[in-house]
Amino acid sequence: MESTPNILATRYASGAMRGVWSAEGRVALERDYWIAVLRAQKDLGLNIPAEAVEAYERVKGQINLESINKREAVTRHDVKARIEEFCDLAGYEHIHKGLTSRDLTENVEQLQILRGLEILRTKTLAALVKLADRAEQWKDLVITARTHNVPAQPTTFGKRLAMFGEDLLCAARELDRIVNNYPVRGLKGPVGTQMDLLTLFDGDLEKVDQLESRILDHLGVGASLENVGQVYPRGLDFEVVSVFVRLASGPSSFAKTLRIMAGHELASEGFAKGQVGSSAMPHKMNSRSCERLNGFAAILKGYLTMASELSGDQWNEGDVSCSVVRRVFLPDSFYAIDGLLDTFITILNQMEVYPAVIDQENQRYGPFLSTTTVLMEAVKAGAGREEAHEAIKEHAVATVRDLRSGVIMHNDLVDRLAADQRLGLTAEKLAAVVADAQAKTGMAATQVAQFCEAVREEVQSFPAASSYEPGAIL
Amino acid sequence: MESTPNILATRYASGAMRGVWSAEGRVALERDYWIAVLRAQKDLGLNIPAEAVEAYERVKGQINLESINKREAVTRHDVKARIEEFCDLAGYEHIHKGLTSRDLTENVEQLQILRGLEILRTKTLAALVKLADRAEQWKDLVITARTHNVPAQPTTFGKRLAMFGEDLLCAARELDRIVNNYPVRGLKGPVGTQMDLLTLFDGDLEKVDQLESRILDHLGVGASLENVGQVYPRGLDFEVVSVFVRLASGPSSFAKTLRIMAGHELASEGFAKGQVGSSAMPHKMNSRSCERLNGFAAILKGYLTMASELSGDQWNEGDVSCSVVRRVFLPDSFYAIDGLLDTFITILNQMEVYPAVIDQENQRYGPFLSTTTVLMEAVKAGAGREEAHEAIKEHAVATVRDLRSGVIMHNDLVDRLAADQRLGLTAEKLAAVVADAQAKTGMAATQVAQFCEAVREEVQSFPAASSYEPGAIL
Amino acid sequence: MESTPNILATRYASGAMRGVWSAEGRVALERDYWIAVLRAQKDLGLNIPAEAVEAYERVKGQINLESINKREAVTRHDVKARIEEFCDLAGYEHIHKGLTSRDLTENVEQLQILRGLEILRTKTLAALVKLADRAEQWKDLVITARTHNVPAQPTTFGKRLAMFGEDLLCAARELDRIVNNYPVRGLKGPVGTQMDLLTLFDGDLEKVDQLESRILDHLGVGASLENVGQVYPRGLDFEVVSVFVRLASGPSSFAKTLRIMAGHELASEGFAKGQVGSSAMPHKMNSRSCERLNGFAAILKGYLTMASELSGDQWNEGDVSCSVVRRVFLPDSFYAIDGLLDTFITILNQMEVYPAVIDQENQRYGPFLSTTTVLMEAVKAGAGREEAHEAIKEHAVATVRDLRSGVIMHNDLVDRLAADQRLGLTAEKLAAVVADAQAKTGMAATQVAQFCEAVREEVQSFPAASSYEPGAIL
Amino acid sequence: MESTPNILATRYASGAMRGVWSAEGRVALERDYWIAVLRAQKDLGLNIPAEAVEAYERVKGQINLESINKREAVTRHDVKARIEEFCDLAGYEHIHKGLTSRDLTENVEQLQILRGLEILRTKTLAALVKLADRAEQWKDLVITARTHNVPAQPTTFGKRLAMFGEDLLCAARELDRIVNNYPVRGLKGPVGTQMDLLTLFDGDLEKVDQLESRILDHLGVGASLENVGQVYPRGLDFEVVSVFVRLASGPSSFAKTLRIMAGHELASEGFAKGQVGSSAMPHKMNSRSCERLNGFAAILKGYLTMASELSGDQWNEGDVSCSVVRRVFLPDSFYAIDGLLDTFITILNQMEVYPAVIDQENQRYGPFLSTTTVLMEAVKAGAGREEAHEAIKEHAVATVRDLRSGVIMHNDLVDRLAADQRLGLTAEKLAAVVADAQAKTGMAATQVAQFCEAVREEVQSFPAASSYEPGAIL
Repeated sequence: MESTPNILATRYASGAMRGVWSAEGRVALERDYWIAVLRAQKDLGLNIPAEAVEAYERVKGQINLESINKREAVTRHDVKARIEEFCDLAGYEHIHKGLTSRDLTENVEQLQILRGLEILRTKTLAALVKLADRAEQWKDLVITARTHNVPAQPTTFGKRLAMFGEDLLCAARELDRIVNNYPVRGLKGPVGTQMDLLTLFDGDLEKVDQLESRILDHLGVGASLENVGQVYPRGLDFEVVSVFVRLASGPSSFAKTLRIMAGHELASEGFAKGQVGSSAMPHKMNSRSCERLNGFAAILKGYLTMASELSGDQWNEGDVSCSVVRRVFLPDSFYAIDGLLDTFITILNQMEVYPAVIDQENQRYGPFLSTTTVLMEAVKAGAGREEAHEAIKEHAVATVRDLRSGVIMHNDLVDRLAADQRLGLTAEKLAAVVADAQAKTGMAATQVAQFCEAVREEVQSFPAASSYEPGAIL
Repeated sequence: MESTPNILATRYASGAMRGVWSAEGRVALERDYWIAVLRAQKDLGLNIPAEAVEAYERVKGQINLESINKREAVTRHDVKARIEEFCDLAGYEHIHKGLTSRDLTENVEQLQILRGLEILRTKTLAALVKLADRAEQWKDLVITARTHNVPAQPTTFGKRLAMFGEDLLCAARELDRIVNNYPVRGLKGPVGTQMDLLTLFDGDLEKVDQLESRILDHLGVGASLENVGQVYPRGLDFEVVSVFVRLASGPSSFAKTLRIMAGHELASEGFAKGQVGSSAMPHKMNSRSCERLNGFAAILKGYLTMASELSGDQWNEGDVSCSVVRRVFLPDSFYAIDGLLDTFITILNQMEVYPAVIDQENQRYGPFLSTTTVLMEAVKAGAGREEAHEAIKEHAVATVRDLRSGVIMHNDLVDRLAADQRLGLTAEKLAAVVADAQAKTGMAATQVAQFCEAVREEVQSFPAASSYEPGAIL
Repeated sequence: MESTPNILATRYASGAMRGVWSAEGRVALERDYWIAVLRAQKDLGLNIPAEAVEAYERVKGQINLESINKREAVTRHDVKARIEEFCDLAGYEHIHKGLTSRDLTENVEQLQILRGLEILRTKTLAALVKLADRAEQWKDLVITARTHNVPAQPTTFGKRLAMFGEDLLCAARELDRIVNNYPVRGLKGPVGTQMDLLTLFDGDLEKVDQLESRILDHLGVGASLENVGQVYPRGLDFEVVSVFVRLASGPSSFAKTLRIMAGHELASEGFAKGQVGSSAMPHKMNSRSCERLNGFAAILKGYLTMASELSGDQWNEGDVSCSVVRRVFLPDSFYAIDGLLDTFITILNQMEVYPAVIDQENQRYGPFLSTTTVLMEAVKAGAGREEAHEAIKEHAVATVRDLRSGVIMHNDLVDRLAADQRLGLTAEKLAAVVADAQAKTGMAATQVAQFCEAVREEVQSFPAASSYEPGAIL
Repeated sequence: MESTPNILATRYASGAMRGVWSAEGRVALERDYWIAVLRAQKDLGLNIPAEAVEAYERVKGQINLESINKREAVTRHDVKARIEEFCDLAGYEHIHKGLTSRDLTENVEQLQILRGLEILRTKTLAALVKLADRAEQWKDLVITARTHNVPAQPTTFGKRLAMFGEDLLCAARELDRIVNNYPVRGLKGPVGTQMDLLTLFDGDLEKVDQLESRILDHLGVGASLENVGQVYPRGLDFEVVSVFVRLASGPSSFAKTLRIMAGHELASEGFAKGQVGSSAMPHKMNSRSCERLNGFAAILKGYLTMASELSGDQWNEGDVSCSVVRRVFLPDSFYAIDGLLDTFITILNQMEVYPAVIDQENQRYGPFLSTTTVLMEAVKAGAGREEAHEAIKEHAVATVRDLRSGVIMHNDLVDRLAADQRLGLTAEKLAAVVADAQAKTGMAATQVAQFCEAVREEVQSFPAASSYEPGAIL
C-alpha cells in the first residue's frame, strides 16, 4: 500500500506520545486490561483456570498487527478480531466474559487519554520551568513595551516572558485538575445498566461493584461515571481538547511576539547547535519553529471543532457516529499539542536576544515615552504648565515628522527641548530625565519573581518536569 | 434609528442576565468601581476631598445613555466619554486617577463575566435538581433502551434522564471551579508594570499593593493575575465560553433524544399551561423548545470559535483586535447559555411521558431482546444448545421479516417458539421468561439514586437553586 | 517505528484518493513537474543537454522514500533532499533551475488538490445518479412527511430523496465551478516578482511568460494567479474545504433522516451482500454507515476550521506558519469527503424500505392529516361549519388521547366521526375521504422528475460518473 | 427595558445594511411580498376584490412594531401576529391564502440575503477600485519584501497591495456567482409538495406554476429550488457565510501586514481628517482600524461555525432547530462583513507610507540581498568562485554580527567587500551592484498593471462601485 503515515505522529510528535496512541500501544493496553478483568473475575469466584491467566500473560507481548487485520477483514468487527487473535495465541477462550465491546474500548481509550495527559502535564511544567529561567535571566533587560504594535512604555524582557508564562500557568492548573479528576466509564454493559455482569455474577450487586473497583485500580483512576449509556458523554472529550487550546494560548502569543521581534532583530528563536544560517542571507534567521508552533495552535482549533461536534449529540443510549471522528481527533490532537510543547521548549532553549538592537529601539522611542516626566520637571524648574506643554508637543510632533521623512536618522528630541527657552532645562538635565524615565519598569522585577515562585510551587510535586528535554525537532 | 435589538437578549435571555450586560448595567458597574478606587486612594493618602466621593455616590444612579453617546461622538473614545459624563454630573474631576482605560474596562468586564457565571451556576444547579426529581419520578418506568437508534436492552426512563444528568453534573463542577478561581487583571497600567500607580504613590510599592487588594475586595474576587500586559490573557475568555459548550452537552443530548421519542409518541415536551395543540392536528405536539435548545447549543459553538480566535493571538503587550469580537461574543454567549438553561428547565417542568405507548414498544421488541435467556432456559429444559440456537434464530428472523412485510402486526415470536418442539418450552414458560427479561434493568435504580444523591450534595451550598423557576419562555 | 498510519487514508479513503496524496504519489507528481520545467527551459534556449532530460525521465519511477528521508535527516530541508535524490539517480544536476522551493511545492500541491477535486466530482455525480435512480424508483411510494419529527402531510419517499438530492446538486455545481476555474500560483520566485527567472532568461519577459504558460499546460489548468507573494492566498484552500462541507450537507441530512426512519423500521441502510444481522437480535439493523457518514461531516467541519485559520493570516509575502496545518488538513479533508461519498453511494446501493410498515404509519396518522378535508365534505353534506369543526376537534383530540393512553391500539377516528350525527357522513364516505387525502402528494412526482432531469443534464459530460461503483467499505 | 442593542448593527454596520435586516425593514419586505402574492392570485382567478389589494397597498407603510409585539405575546406565533396587524390595518382578510408560514418567511429571508449580498458586492468592488488606485500609485515604490517576517528580496509596495487585492478579487468573483445564481425556495407548502396551493387552484398545476413564477419575478431572482421540504437546505446559508470568510481573507492579510509595517514606521493607517495623535505620544499612530478589521474576520469565523452547524442537520422535511441560530448569524454576519468592508475602504482612503523610512530599511538589508549578484560580478572580474564565495560569506556574517551587537549602526558590508582583495571589486562597482540589485523588482510593475486591468473589467457592470464612499467609522 502507498505510504500514508500519520504526519503529526511521525513528523512532529514524540516517541512517548506515539507509544500511547500507536496500534501496538493500544493492543498492549487492551491486553493488560483484559487480563486485569480476568484476574478480578477469577478472584470474585468465576470459574477461570489459573493456567489460562498465565497463558494470556505469557503471550501478551506478541503483537502482530497484520494477523489482526486479516481477522478483521473476515469478521468485519475490530474488537472481535483482537479477541480471536489473543485467544488463539493463548490457547484459551476466557477473556471478555460478560463484557460488551464498549466495556473494553471506552476504558482503554480513556486510559490512552489519561496517559497522554500525564505526558503533557510533564511537558507543560517543563516549559514553565524554562520560561521561569528565561524570565529570571532577562528580568532586568529593559525593552520598549508595545501596545497596538507601537512603542508605549518601558518594561523588561523578563516581564514580557512572565506575561506569556502566567497565561500558560493558568492553563497548566486547569490541565492538572482534569488529570486528577478524570472519570472513566467503567464496566456498564451495552446500555449502561450492568445487566450482563449482574447476570454473570448471578445477581450479586456486590461483586459487580467489586469488579469495577478492581478495574479502576488497574487503570489507576480514582473516579468513574455511574450513569452512562453505551458510551461516556463526549463532552468529556471536548473538555480535553479544550484544555489543549487553552494550553496553546501562552506559547502561541509568545511565538507571534517573537516573530515580530525577529522582524526588528531584537531577538530570534536561534539555531539548533551546529546549524548555520544561509551564507547568501546571513541575516535571515527565520522563525520557522515559532511559525510551526502557531500552526499547531491552528490545528488544535480544528480538532476542537470536531470534539465540539460530538458534544451534546448523543441519541438515546448512544451510537457510533462519533467513532470515525474520535479515531481522528483524539490521537491527532494529542500529537499536535505534544509537538507544540516540544517545539516551545526547544525555542526557549535556543532563543537569543540582541541587547544592542534593543537599546537602539529604546533610544529611538525613549524621549517620546518620557515627555510627561519632562513636563513635570519643566514646571518644577519654573516653566508655565501650558507653555511648557505646548513647547514639548511642538518638538515631539516635529521630531516624529522628521524621523519619518528622513530628515533625521536619530531621535534628537532632547536636543530640541534643551534649545527651547520656554522649558528652562539643560541638555544634561533632560538626558538624565529621559534616561531615568526609560529605566522605569515599575513592578516588572517583582512580578517576574512572583511568576518564578509560582512555577516552583506548581512543579514541586513533579520533579521529572525540571529535567525534561525534548528530542531534536525538525 | 431602525429597530435592531440584540435578539438573544430581548427574545430569549432572562432579565437578570440582561441586567448584567445591558448598557445601563455596565455603566452602573463602572461607577461603583470608580468610586471604590476613589475611596481606596483617599484612604491611602491621596488628596481627595470627602465631598467629591459623596458627590459621585449621589449621582451614580443618573444613567443617561444618550448623553454619553453624544460625548463619544465628539471624543471618539468611549471611556473618556463616560468619565466626562460622570464628572460633570458630580461636579468633580477625581475619578480615574493613575488609571489607564484598561484598568477600568478589563476589570469591569471580568466582573460582568463573574456575575453572569454566578447566575448560570444557580440555573445549572436548578436544572440538576429538576432532572433529579424527574429521574426519581420515573426511575422504575421500563423503556426500551436504544443503541444506533434501534432497540437494544431494557432500561428505565429515570436512568436515561440520570445519564444526561450526570453529563451536566460534570459540567456543573467545572463551572463551579471556574467561578471559584476566576482571576481578574487588577490595576496594572498600560503595559502591565503598574508604573503610573507607582508614580502616583511616589514609588510606594506597599500602597500600590494595598490599592489593588482593596479593589479585589470590592469586586468580590479572591484571585488576581500578576503578570499581564495591557490586557488579561484572552485564553481566560475561551475557558469561559468553553464551559458553556460543556454545559450544553447534557441538555442538548437530552433534547435530541426527546425529539426522537416524540416522533414515536413515547414522550413529549408538553405544553405550557393554557396552551393547546392545533385542533386540525391534535397529534402534533412539536418539540419546539427542544429544537430551540439544540439551536442554542449550535450558537454557543460559534461563539466558542470567536473566543478561540483571540486565544493565543496577543502581539506584544496587546492591542484592540479583540475589542469588537469580545463586544459580540461575551454578552451573546451568556445570553445564549442563559436561554438554553431556562428552556431546559421549562421542558423539564412540562414534559410528559406516555406509558401505554412505551409499553407497546416494549412488547414489540421484548421477545427479541430476550432470546439469549430463552436459549438458556431451553438448554436447562433439556434441549441441545446448537439445535435450540438454530430454532430461535429461524423464528426470530422470520418474525422480523413478517413484521416488516406487514404479514403480522404484533410480535408473535413467543407463539412461534412455543410451537417449536425443539425448544421444549411452553407458551406460559416463554411468556414468563420474556416478561422477566424485559423487566431486567440491572443497576438502573441504584444508578438513579446515586445521581440524585450527587445532585443533592452539589446543590447543598446553593439553596437558591432548589427554588429557581424561569419566567415564561416564548 | 510504531504503526501510526493515517487512519482516514488507510481505513476509509479509496485507493484513487490515496494515490493522489501518498508520499509516492507526490514524489511522482514533483518529478513530472521538474521534467516539464526542464523541457520548457530547454526549448526556450537554456543550455540543457537532451541526455539529461532523458536520464531524468528514465529514473523518475524509482521512488525510494527511505533514501529520501535519510537525505532530509542530513539537509533538514525536504525539497533539497528530493532534488538530491532525483539528481543522483539521473546523474545530472539540471532540475530546479531558477526556481525557489515554493515554485515546486505550491504548484504540485495545487495539482494534488485539482486531481483530488476531479475524483470527487466524479463521485458526487455518481451519487446524484444513484439518488435519481432511487427517487425515480420510489417516486410514488407515499410516506408520511414529518416536520418537527411529527407527521405533517403526505409526500412520497422519492420526493424525500430528491429533496436531499437537490441540496447535493447545488453543491455539485459549486464544485464543478471550482474545478473549472482553479488558478495555480505558477512560477513566481521567492517573493512573487519572478526576478530569478527573469535573471535566468537575461531579462527576457517573453520567455518567462512562455515558461509559465508551458507549465500551466503541463498541469492542465487554465488559470494562474498573477499577484502572489511566496505563496498563493490560503483563502483558496478555504474555498476548497468549504465546498466539501457544502457537499456533505445533502448526504448528511439524508443519513440523519434514514437513521430516524430506521428507528421506526420504515427503512434501513441494508446490509452488504452476504452480511447478516446478529442472530440474537435479528431486528437490529444498525445504521452504522449512516452514522459514519455523519461522522465524516463532523470531521470536515474541523478541517474547515483549520483552513479558515490560515485564510487572511498572511504576514507580508508569507511564511510557513501554514505548513504543518496544510500537511494535515489538505490530504485529510480529501480523504474524509472521499470516504463520505463512497459511504453514501454504498448506502444508496444497499438501502431497503418496508412498504408495509410505511403503510401502517400512514394508517395511524392519515385520519388526523385529513381532518380539513373531512370538514369540507361535512359542510358540503349539509353540516353547519362551526358544529362540524367542533365535532371533528372533539373526536380527534379524544383519539389521540386514547392512542397515547393505550385505550386503543389503532386510529379509529373514522369510526368515531361516522358515528357522530353532527357530520352526516357515512363510514364509507369518510374512509374514501381519508384514503383520498392520504394519497394527495401534490407535485411530488413532477418534482422528482425535474430532479432526475437536472441530474441527467449535469452528468452528461461526465460519462464515468454513471458507472462508478465504490469498493467495499468497512 | 434595558438597552441591549445589536452592537454590530448600531456601532459598526452601515445604514443600508441595517435597513435590510431591521425589524421595520423585514415587515416592509413581507408586506410587499404578501401583496405580490395577492395580486398574482387575483390575476390567476381567485376571488379577491381589487379594493382589498388597494387597501393593503395603502397601509403597508404603517409599521408599528409595538403593536405587532403585543399581538405576538397573545398568539405566541410571530407570523400570525404580523398577519393580524396587516389585516386589521387594511380592513380585509385576504393575504396569506394557501400559504404556510414558511412560504412567507423563507422567501423573505432569502430576499434579505440577496439584497444584503448586492450591497456587499458593491462594497467589495469599491474596495477593489481603491486598492487598484493605491497599487497604481505605489507601483514603483521599492520596499523590502519579507518572508518569515525577515527581509528577502525587493518588491514594490504597489505589488504588495495588488497581492492582497488579487486575493479579494477571487473572492469577489465567487460572491458575484452566488448573487447571480441564488435560488429561492418559492411557494411549496408545509412539506414541499405544493398541495395546499394545488387545492386552492382546484388542482390546476399550471396556475400553481404561474403563481410561483410571478413571485420569483417580484423577488427579482432567476432561480428557484424544486425539491424542498418545509425549508430550503441550510447548506445555502453556509455558502453565503462562507463567501464572507473568503471575502475577508485579502483585507485581513492586508491589515495584519499594515500593523506590522506600522511597527516599523514604514506606513500607517493614517488618521481621519481633523483627528490628531496624542500630544504626549505623537509617534503613536495606533492601527486601530486594522485591528478592528482583523476582529471582524474573527467574528465571521464564529458565524461560519453556526452556519456549518445547520448544514446537513435536516431531519425529515425540517424543523425549527435552525430558527434561533439563523436569527443570530444571518443578520450579524452581514453586519460584520459590512463593517469590515467599510473599515477596509476607510483605511485605503487614509493610509500613509513613509518613503524615507522605507528607504532606510532598503539600505540596511540591500547589501545582504544582493550577495549573489556580487558573487557573480566577482567571478566575472576574475576571482575564483570558491574563494569569492568564502570571502562574501565571512563579511556578511561579520556584518550581521556587528549590527546585532551594536558595533556598527549601519550596514557597511559594501565597504568590507571593497577592502577584500579576493573579490577584486571597487567600492564604486560594489555600490552600483547593490543599488542595481535593490531596484530589481522583476515583473512587479507588470503584475500591478494586470491587477488594475482585472479590477476595471470586473467593475465595469457596476458603476456605483467606483464612486462608493463609506460613512465615517468609529
